[in-house]
Amino acid sequence: MPTQEQIALWNDLARQLRADSIRCTTAAGSGHPTSGMSAADLMAVLQASYLRYDYDDPHHPNNDHLIFSKGHACPVLYAMYRAADAITDEELLSVRKFGSIYEGHPTPLIPHVDAATGSLGQGLAIAAGVALAGKRIEGLPYRVWCVLGDSEMAEGSVYEAMAVAADHGLDNLVAIIDANRLGQRGATQVGHDLEVHVARAAAFGWRTILVDGHDVSAIDAAYAEAVAHTGSPVCIVARTFKGGGVSFLSDAAGWHGKALPPADAEKALAELGNPSGLVVKPAKPEDLRPAAVAAPVAPSLPRYELGSKVAVRKAFGDALAALGAARADVFALDAEVGNSTYTEIFGKAFPDRHFQMYIAEQVMVGVAQGLDVRGQIGFAATFAAFFCRAYDQIRMAAVSRASLRLVGTHAGVSIGEDGPSQMALEDLAMMRAIHGSLVLYPSDATSAAALLPVMADHDGVSYLRATREATPVLYGPDEAFPIGGSKTLREGDAATVVAAGITLVEALAAADALSAEGVRVRVIDLYSVKPIDAATLAKAARETPHLIVAEDHYAQGGMAEAVLAALAGEGVAPRRFTHLCVREMPRSGRTAELLGAYGIDAAAIRAAVQG
Amino acid sequence: MPTQEQIALWNDLARQLRADSIRCTTAAGSGHPTSGMSAADLMAVLQASYLRYDYDDPHHPNNDHLIFSKGHACPVLYAMYRAADAITDEELLSVRKFGSIYEGHPTPLIPHVDAATGSLGQGLAIAAGVALAGKRIEGLPYRVWCVLGDSEMAEGSVYEAMAVAADHGLDNLVAIIDANRLGQRGATQVGHDLEVHVARAAAFGWRTILVDGHDVSAIDAAYAEAVAHTGSPVCIVARTFKGGGVSFLSDAAGWHGKALPPADAEKALAELGNPSGLVVKPAKPEDLRPAAVAAPVAPSLPRYELGSKVAVRKAFGDALAALGAARADVFALDAEVGNSTYTEIFGKAFPDRHFQMYIAEQVMVGVAQGLDVRGQIGFAATFAAFFCRAYDQIRMAAVSRASLRLVGTHAGVSIGEDGPSQMALEDLAMMRAIHGSLVLYPSDATSAAALLPVMADHDGVSYLRATREATPVLYGPDEAFPIGGSKTLREGDAATVVAAGITLVEALAAADALSAEGVRVRVIDLYSVKPIDAATLAKAARETPHLIVAEDHYAQGGMAEAVLAALAGEGVAPRRFTHLCVREMPRSGRTAELLGAYGIDAAAIRAAVQG
Repeated sequence: MPTQEQIALWNDLARQLRADSIRCTTAAGSGHPTSGMSAADLMAVLQASYLRYDYDDPHHPNNDHLIFSKGHACPVLYAMYRAADAITDEELLSVRKFGSIYEGHPTPLIPHVDAATGSLGQGLAIAAGVALAGKRIEGLPYRVWCVLGDSEMAEGSVYEAMAVAADHGLDNLVAIIDANRLGQRGATQVGHDLEVHVARAAAFGWRTILVDGHDVSAIDAAYAEAVAHTGSPVCIVARTFKGGGVSFLSDAAGWHGKALPPADAEKALAELGNPSGLVVKPAKPEDLRPAAVAAPVAPSLPRYELGSKVAVRKAFGDALAALGAARADVFALDAEVGNSTYTEIFGKAFPDRHFQMYIAEQVMVGVAQGLDVRGQIGFAATFAAFFCRAYDQIRMAAVSRASLRLVGTHAGVSIGEDGPSQMALEDLAMMRAIHGSLVLYPSDATSAAALLPVMADHDGVSYLRATREATPVLYGPDEAFPIGGSKTLREGDAATVVAAGITLVEALAAADALSAEGVRVRVIDLYSVKPIDAATLAKAARETPHLIVAEDHYAQGGMAEAVLAALAGEGVAPRRFTHLCVREMPRSGRTAELLGAYGIDAAAIRAAVQG
Repeated sequence: MPTQEQIALWNDLARQLRADSIRCTTAAGSGHPTSGMSAADLMAVLQASYLRYDYDDPHHPNNDHLIFSKGHACPVLYAMYRAADAITDEELLSVRKFGSIYEGHPTPLIPHVDAATGSLGQGLAIAAGVALAGKRIEGLPYRVWCVLGDSEMAEGSVYEAMAVAADHGLDNLVAIIDANRLGQRGATQVGHDLEVHVARAAAFGWRTILVDGHDVSAIDAAYAEAVAHTGSPVCIVARTFKGGGVSFLSDAAGWHGKALPPADAEKALAELGNPSGLVVKPAKPEDLRPAAVAAPVAPSLPRYELGSKVAVRKAFGDALAALGAARADVFALDAEVGNSTYTEIFGKAFPDRHFQMYIAEQVMVGVAQGLDVRGQIGFAATFAAFFCRAYDQIRMAAVSRASLRLVGTHAGVSIGEDGPSQMALEDLAMMRAIHGSLVLYPSDATSAAALLPVMADHDGVSYLRATREATPVLYGPDEAFPIGGSKTLREGDAATVVAAGITLVEALAAADALSAEGVRVRVIDLYSVKPIDAATLAKAARETPHLIVAEDHYAQGGMAEAVLAALAGEGVAPRRFTHLCVREMPRSGRTAELLGAYGIDAAAIRAAVQG
């Protein structure tokens, strides 16, 4: 049983968190005070009595993690920083102002924030990744606390994360559902029928605790139970009221996402007793470090014989295993297609470092981001088309300034009989538009293998597009593939063909056939789609009368538009430009049939040169 | 209790469905026979005794719907068509061959298929939309059957659909989980621990029935219970074996997604008794038609005063309500942000036609597609950034040849203080790359309103990007905005600025300021980003020395690349090209601060003209 002093401290802290949530948003003139106020008691008990976090050393490896999946409620999070004396009152009051790192939704510009949130339903998957790292990789006892809103419990991504967290027995993970009943425009999907949240979490394998989220003693008991529990993650479903703690805001409609006008703020602060100046620092973590791992060495990448046929996806699998042998911090994440993406090669070599996410791309990407939070290098692979399922997570990873390594196999119509549902034809557009992304599209096994260590070392989101079919090895094993480079594989002045992946194979065939007829065509392997080798492209546009881009992708946002943008940036215009790409909804068929039918095979390229 | 004759018929039919699943995939040399075989008994009882479907009249409005969410199992679906004598044996054996409509995964090129599947976890949301139409719109007693695999139960999208279907009491919807235990590379996430599926479905508000999926009498009893149940959707969890019915395939590893080699096929067919020629047609539906609705009239679109300030998102809400008044087949779908997207205006006018999907964008898009299956016009609206969450659904809608109407509000940095998580900066790239899409980006209230009826009538995926801020009304109420058009709002030869949305407002301000100094700049409102007005852009590139594109979007895949591609298609190169867009990860701040900081405001445009 808590003492009266403890209870008083928690309640005092909660009042101050509420007051500061109101103060900072009223100063900003916008924001979400009431969504944080519902969580104030939960956060007060957490900060005062359960969190183990050194605000003076936010990168201490054994700090607990607090991930606010309901990012819009960040005023209460910032108020916790203020209560820990980790930020000044000026910093608190800078919320939402241009230049302040205390933005409308939290981002890792703040050293205490692991992941940007604000697109709902994403925090739990990242939290699961962080917890997985603690439990399965680092062997550290830090705990991961994830605060969710009840509105976001409608997002399916939450249940993917629940299933994966239970699969891996992540008893170092505690989810706190701040079920304040009210969403943006009225009641949430289940309102205060909280047994629904309990039943769902239990059905997904979590220990569940239902609690009155405004009773600090009950919250204390719930946390005590949660931290004592082993074998599964724990979900605390807290019955709260939006705006709770202030009479005219509590459970009141019309206050979502609104700063209080100054007069209302004054009234609310008076009701709270105008609290300020209370400093409650969390306990510091035990001073533990991660288990030592072998120092990285240079990877012995696979070596392929020139001219032999190897699928790029297979080379990815080979190279990932080689990278895994060289670096203990490399992991693979599979969405139940590891025998198609060839992460199974890595999985056989390093079964403890191959994490099965099943067919759940959103949690796969979220867990990869969680591993990155802990400085681990996770490669997430699935069919390129299915990364569309996690596009919002990838977008938000960029807001998080996270490093994600994504490998999408089965690009384009060249996959054949499986048909359009399995063909990635918009992935280059999607991935190029991610802020700061690296987009790689190797055309052979050697370049694919060489690019993997580049991705491991890259800061930001990197994406490798892999062809399904076995294609000829074009490069010797010592060739280098710098980011932003290209390879000119055939020299000529009659025209230039820019291609990558399967269309590069076709372009080379076309060029060789034309060469036999005395027509010399330049062929550029655009393995680095973003950044792009603008200088080489500009040179080709100046030196050859016809620039042809051939890609196994739809017309929009892919290689051709990247090339045109690069040329425009160089101030060079191609004298003539032809874009060969997929312009119809493709059908099932054999690879050669489809490449021909959609006009991206050697014959089409040859015709474009001659046309 | 079923008779012995019934039992014999079901078992005979199931044997033939298995045999035909094997035959067609062996003929193709690829495909998924075993994933269909597990469902053969389930499908035999359904086809013989529960489905109400007229194969001679696939568009009968009261036909049941059968949606194969586990699309890869389509050989058994095609075998059902063969058993109904709806297709010939040649057609069955054309599976996966180029030109055949019987593709590797089903698409609506087949008249009996409602939606393309093959990206897992998507079928149930579409099925919910079809069921919603039957129950809440058309008043027809057709039933919707949705067949899911157990692997796809890892996808969060399934649980979004479950929640929404339960919310709406869709007791005309039956989900059948063909839990065959084996995924692509081993056991599925829950394997044969089927109580997990039962508990999850129950927690999401469904009636559940656990059944032996290879016992036709038990299946019959389950279906009888399902069709008798009222008040909620029903989930049948069927314990099956992959490859079930053939001894050496049943529950055997290594057979996922593999056609049987001819010798194995022969052996399997012999074990099945080489069944063929059995014709079992489902019962025909009652000959009922949808409830009569008022004939559509021309909408009385809102009229805005020139120069007054109205947000495009608000105009969308006004126009949607006007469209709803004119057409009884128009519906709105909200992801719990209707007071931000202004679908609440429609919702207040037509509460029975405004469907709340809560914060679950994937099911919102899936339900919109389900409404389209039934010929209803659903507008789905949320923040543009959050359509990223449903990108795979949107991609698959294009494979389905479906018409979706999507409205994304809060585009770009101009939204201000909420910060980057809420700013759509890659949505144009994402939506342009959808096959056959229409991408609209109105700059004022009048054009936004005028474009809504265009979207309602458009075949395919259409997307309207809406600005959050109130901006000046630029057009009189009678202006027409044809698809693929543009508006030249200022004439001049010094330079051309192409813009839309908030940057058009800035471009006009820049042009007017420059005009006062005697510099005449042409300003083009690119309200139709795809298709694009290539002729007008080419004319501008020829007639003015400097083409500037200004957009509140990242550099890749947006308006600038669309313009460059259009010009390349016209064989015209701009003499000079400048691209103003967002090139940093934006921060929170006021609209004007952010437009200035990221170089897309009037000052930046003016500097580009002068630079």
